[in-house]
Amino acid sequence: MSHNTFGHVFRVTTFGESHGPAIGCVVDGCPPGLPIEAADLQRWLEKRRPGQSRFTTQRQEPDLVKILSGVFREDGRPQVTTGAPIALLVENVDQRSKDYGEIRDRYRPGHADFTYDAKYGLRDYRGGGRSSARETAMRVAAGGVARLVVPGVTIRGALVQMGPHAIDRARWDDAEIDRNPFFCPDPVAAAAWAEYLDGIRKSGSSCGAVVEVTATGVPPGWGAPVYGKLDAEIASALMSVNAVKAVEIGDGMAVASLTGEENADEMRAPVAGAEHPTFLTNHAGGILGGISTGQPVVARFAVKPTSSILTPLRAVTRTGVEVDVRTKGRHDPCVGIRAVPVGEAMIAIVLADAFLRHRAQTGSGSPWPIAT
Amino acid sequence: MSHNTFGHVFRVTTFGESHGPAIGCVVDGCPPGLPIEAADLQRWLEKRRPGQSRFTTQRQEPDLVKILSGVFREDGRPQVTTGAPIALLVENVDQRSKDYGEIRDRYRPGHADFTYDAKYGLRDYRGGGRSSARETAMRVAAGGVARLVVPGVTIRGALVQMGPHAIDRARWDDAEIDRNPFFCPDPVAAAAWAEYLDGIRKSGSSCGAVVEVTATGVPPGWGAPVYGKLDAEIASALMSVNAVKAVEIGDGMAVASLTGEENADEMRAPVAGAEHPTFLTNHAGGILGGISTGQPVVARFAVKPTSSILTPLRAVTRTGVEVDVRTKGRHDPCVGIRAVPVGEAMIAIVLADAFLRHRAQTGSGSPWPIAT
Amino acid sequence: MSHNTFGHVFRVTTFGESHGPAIGCVVDGCPPGLPIEAADLQRWLEKRRPGQSRFTTQRQEPDLVKILSGVFREDGRPQVTTGAPIALLVENVDQRSKDYGEIRDRYRPGHADFTYDAKYGLRDYRGGGRSSARETAMRVAAGGVARLVVPGVTIRGALVQMGPHAIDRARWDDAEIDRNPFFCPDPVAAAAWAEYLDGIRKSGSSCGAVVEVTATGVPPGWGAPVYGKLDAEIASALMSVNAVKAVEIGDGMAVASLTGEENADEMRAPVAGAEHPTFLTNHAGGILGGISTGQPVVARFAVKPTSSILTPLRAVTRTGVEVDVRTKGRHDPCVGIRAVPVGEAMIAIVLADAFLRHRAQTGSGSPWPIAT
Amino acid sequence: MSHNTFGHVFRVTTFGESHGPAIGCVVDGCPPGLPIEAADLQRWLEKRRPGQSRFTTQRQEPDLVKILSGVFREDGRPQVTTGAPIALLVENVDQRSKDYGEIRDRYRPGHADFTYDAKYGLRDYRGGGRSSARETAMRVAAGGVARLVVPGVTIRGALVQMGPHAIDRARWDDAEIDRNPFFCPDPVAAAAWAEYLDGIRKSGSSCGAVVEVTATGVPPGWGAPVYGKLDAEIASALMSVNAVKAVEIGDGMAVASLTGEENADEMRAPVAGAEHPTFLTNHAGGILGGISTGQPVVARFAVKPTSSILTPLRAVTRTGVEVDVRTKGRHDPCVGIRAVPVGEAMIAIVLADAFLRHRAQTGSGSPWPIAT
Repeated sequence: MSHNTFGHVFRVTTFGESHGPAIGCVVDGCPPGLPIEAADLQRWLEKRRPGQSRFTTQRQEPDLVKILSGVFREDGRPQVTTGAPIALLVENVDQRSKDYGEIRDRYRPGHADFTYDAKYGLRDYRGGGRSSARETAMRVAAGGVARLVVPGVTIRGALVQMGPHAIDRARWDDAEIDRNPFFCPDPVAAAAWAEYLDGIRKSGSSCGAVVEVTATGVPPGWGAPVYGKLDAEIASALMSVNAVKAVEIGDGMAVASLTGEENADEMRAPVAGAEHPTFLTNHAGGILGGISTGQPVVARFAVKPTSSILTPLRAVTRTGVEVDVRTKGRHDPCVGIRAVPVGEAMIAIVLADAFLRHRAQTGSGSPWPIAT
Repeated sequence: MSHNTFGHVFRVTTFGESHGPAIGCVVDGCPPGLPIEAADLQRWLEKRRPGQSRFTTQRQEPDLVKILSGVFREDGRPQVTTGAPIALLVENVDQRSKDYGEIRDRYRPGHADFTYDAKYGLRDYRGGGRSSARETAMRVAAGGVARLVVPGVTIRGALVQMGPHAIDRARWDDAEIDRNPFFCPDPVAAAAWAEYLDGIRKSGSSCGAVVEVTATGVPPGWGAPVYGKLDAEIASALMSVNAVKAVEIGDGMAVASLTGEENADEMRAPVAGAEHPTFLTNHAGGILGGISTGQPVVARFAVKPTSSILTPLRAVTRTGVEVDVRTKGRHDPCVGIRAVPVGEAMIAIVLADAFLRHRAQTGSGSPWPIAT
Repeated sequence: MSHNTFGHVFRVTTFGESHGPAIGCVVDGCPPGLPIEAADLQRWLEKRRPGQSRFTTQRQEPDLVKILSGVFREDGRPQVTTGAPIALLVENVDQRSKDYGEIRDRYRPGHADFTYDAKYGLRDYRGGGRSSARETAMRVAAGGVARLVVPGVTIRGALVQMGPHAIDRARWDDAEIDRNPFFCPDPVAAAAWAEYLDGIRKSGSSCGAVVEVTATGVPPGWGAPVYGKLDAEIASALMSVNAVKAVEIGDGMAVASLTGEENADEMRAPVAGAEHPTFLTNHAGGILGGISTGQPVVARFAVKPTSSILTPLRAVTRTGVEVDVRTKGRHDPCVGIRAVPVGEAMIAIVLADAFLRHRAQTGSGSPWPIAT
Repeated sequence: MSHNTFGHVFRVTTFGESHGPAIGCVVDGCPPGLPIEAADLQRWLEKRRPGQSRFTTQRQEPDLVKILSGVFREDGRPQVTTGAPIALLVENVDQRSKDYGEIRDRYRPGHADFTYDAKYGLRDYRGGGRSSARETAMRVAAGGVARLVVPGVTIRGALVQMGPHAIDRARWDDAEIDRNPFFCPDPVAAAAWAEYLDGIRKSGSSCGAVVEVTATGVPPGWGAPVYGKLDAEIASALMSVNAVKAVEIGDGMAVASLTGEENADEMRAPVAGAEHPTFLTNHAGGILGGISTGQPVVARFAVKPTSSILTPLRAVTRTGVEVDVRTKGRHDPCVGIRAVPVGEAMIAIVLADAFLRHRAQTGSGSPWPIAT
């Protein structure tokens, strides 16, 4: 991973600022021959697109993705990847740079204003510039390509906590996730969240959230010791998303409180037709020693509350003068919501990369069980 | 980060298995001219070395580190780094491979036995082979080199929770950390933990833990958008440590429950003599937008309970036969303890790399405050 | 270097095909605060642009470069780099894909047609797709950014041999390079080449060439042992250019015939005002042990004759049927000419990267002479 | 490629100085399950080992390689790679550091003395430290591992020119290469070289050479556009070898003098039983568009004359004082000889890496011919 590139063999490089002419990315190392249309990527961008409910920013960006390279369509055949780098572009449409004029010289608490200035000596303050969560649109687009690389894997994200309000896992219903504006799998919680978030939104406040992403269909063997561990890659991928402050695999922080007996995922012989052992539990979140077990890979991450709030906060200017900052403009009261498709995309990118790296070192198939 | 290499400009590559002849690492990209003696590295290895109390494994490894390259001593001067790769070697001494004979064909729950076989088709089962936490000794040694690269930074780890028992932060005493065998900053908790862990140990069980590492003296500006974020690097670094299942920055998972007002780190003008603004709180853990703020960088990670326990667990063999596994041998009842110096080392490596990358892109000094 | 990325700290990723909608690149790791306008890049693209004389392809591409990201202009100030990735885009305008219809199924000798099919199982055959030299336009654009990173360095390329006709170095005149359509420093040779190349062109044939690039102003100390050697990076950079089959540093292949006495670059004390020793000759081409000496860095590369010629050549189709191929379409009779600005650009990119890597490891200035 | 690491998926990191305790390397990314014994590596080291004839340095180094990690031997089975990093170590035995005392403060022309000081501010001057060709022993050892990864490929090097004396290719005899101390395939040239080199040696002079390495059995499809081209990787690999000043692929520099007709490698249908087309010539050296064609991959490189000669040369000291330098000590009069196994090793490493990268992106087999 370099500054603006993620991945090793399947590599995503993003570029673009919130209020520049466009954002985009280059996906390199993609296998050739995969059928791909812009619509395959657009469907994921639609999940992340702003302005779809009263609970997300009212900035209106169509977020239409164009494929500039790396694909080819012969007469009468589907368009496919060629193995060359795939460049994706999304034009910025609804920039309102005037909204940000007054924070040109002010460091908004919780934003990267001060740190960009401290690092670079200047910053593109329009909409947060490079630090804007708009960059995550390209993660979602690139994640759409990544999904094509691992077609046997299903990646599904959900919001499992909004502010202090967690879902009741006994009510988990996958179908519910698409029925509410929160990607919430618990219909009761979804209803409560709507009321809660309306209060937050109307008061100009914001709240944090927890997102959970599960990938099923990952075969045993992906990932690698010791710095290329699958969970280390996931941690890096998710922590690199704007506003994320924690990443958990499997039982996550809760493992600290467990005993070895409680944490053990016991195993039984493969069930009929299966190629690998059955695990009786999944405290490990599908990863042992940095390598996938064949169980669902489960990751969670905490998203901090949006830093842009109406309450005046104590801050300083670029020259160190004390001021109060009260952030207007269009913002998500809970950025965790739109982080759901972003988290899915990052997991997809990690898994596509892990698959290709695994194939590089070992050839394709998993050799288990061991012949003796 | 590649399979067995961590870092970008300051790069650490480790090698070695638990029961091979030696473990070692190569540290590449180190600046020249830094005074270095083996003792500078040994002091950190001593903190991690097994067999120092009844609370860690009784395997007796002197863990004496040898510097094989990358250093030079002219007559009458201190030995210094030359800018060439620094190879470090620790010989394995106290292997008892016979202890592991019976698990040759068995997949211990919670260990990487099955996943290594699933990935590679074979595994070095002696002491866990490459998946053994013995590899972390080289992280600690390399971390010792990294500390020399960022001499203005102080990195301090502590155990803040053992099993379900967290410290009382009101009793935090840095000096206490070195007075007990747990790196515990709370003397009351340390006493309670001794009793608790004796119970765990005598019953052949194990428990999890939470480690917190704080780096003070990090100037604003280290780290980089968007995939080279300082927190993303930390997340990858810590999650790659054996048995770690979660990583938090600053308030971590708790941010989900906060409002924007609660989470805001307000700022005031620099105090006299200071070069950068004063933050009134540090919910962010010293990182905003992936770049250091100048506040202490605070990271926490959860370590799962040792998987090797005396209680028989249901498992399978390499050929899929159901068996019970009861792990004998020498193990830590709480691997979180020895993870403290490992966590410190990983943070040191991340920071040394971030410093050099920052220097590459921007030249040395932080340009803040901005002239207008 | 990965598939479509060049460089380590200063990194260039290119994308795009000859007949796709656009070609482009992302330049990552650029220092912030460098004044930059599209015109700074366009001036180099103009040198490479096709259709400027009868000696290059008649494809008419304006090659107008747009900067999509990574720059910022505050009111009344020059536009500068921000440290964020700089995306550059050039739209393709004059594609005539019908010209290539007949070679859809044919493998042109000397082209990458067969190898792309062999690797990927398909290829974008329109104008050579990704293997087209059109990709080099983005190298030139990125090289324009790189030049801004090393402002003290002057990089100058020249054609020193066309077909079997080498220049007479006694007639070398830097000013002449811009006066003829060949970047030829020898006016007598330039005149002879015009006649020679007209013959080649009219007969539908093609010829090879040798390009020499010299970088002056490179301080001692750039480059690094042992796989990051400055000459190894240059070799990789130049050999990656289309049609290049050899790279030389300094005396190049001729060193094989020299004795140690003949090859020695003797040294004398620094001249007044100079910071480093004077070398009496430069057989080494400005690099010793992979590190710059402070002398001009001199590299040469051989470009093969354009493979597209009118003479029918024996070939096969995608399904192995024997055919004759006679390449029509618009082509350069001597691609070596337009390789001159490409070679300059690659050297610029290598040097910008070497400078930043050197600064990372050692801080800024060269420490020589050594205090004792 | 980073400073001391070569390769992307198959990665070699070397360390060690000429007069330190040991030299070594770490080979990461190696596929698991490959039978490997130290003897498999030692056989290649024997070809490079000094002191085997009067034509190479008389330094006596047994160069016995030890495998420290990454391998495993189960009872009664061959030792195999495990997929973990393979560390290799060679202890230095015959250092005579006193030989180098007098050049501590002197910059020998043609050596890296000045440049290391200019870069790092200090240097390990004993035997050249890190810049010593002793480092190439580890390339040879790592190349031995690489050969195991591509067992269908045969890599063969030969010296094709010594000083101004080239072989007569009409007399090329592969069997002859192992019969003379020069790896010379032409018995007549070998005899003449012996006389020539005796003269060079006795006069304390040195001479350059040209090495040619041919890899047969490389399938079509290895390598990748556009910066990961197989020839770009080879160029980097060979130019990184000590004393190399030029790299050629196929016809190399000579392509400049050819016309398109002369340079064309025409194709015919696959011969019976073959999977890919027959090429009638191999001017391209087995690579088109950066991707292998299935023909032999042919690379050549020029090695400069040993810089250590008895003739006094004008030079300066570390503090800029003018002196004469006359290099005693044990040296090769023609380092090109021992560069033959080094060149082979670098080609092996490039090919192993290219194979694994190709397998990553495309799965295993070459898909040609294309079904329509």
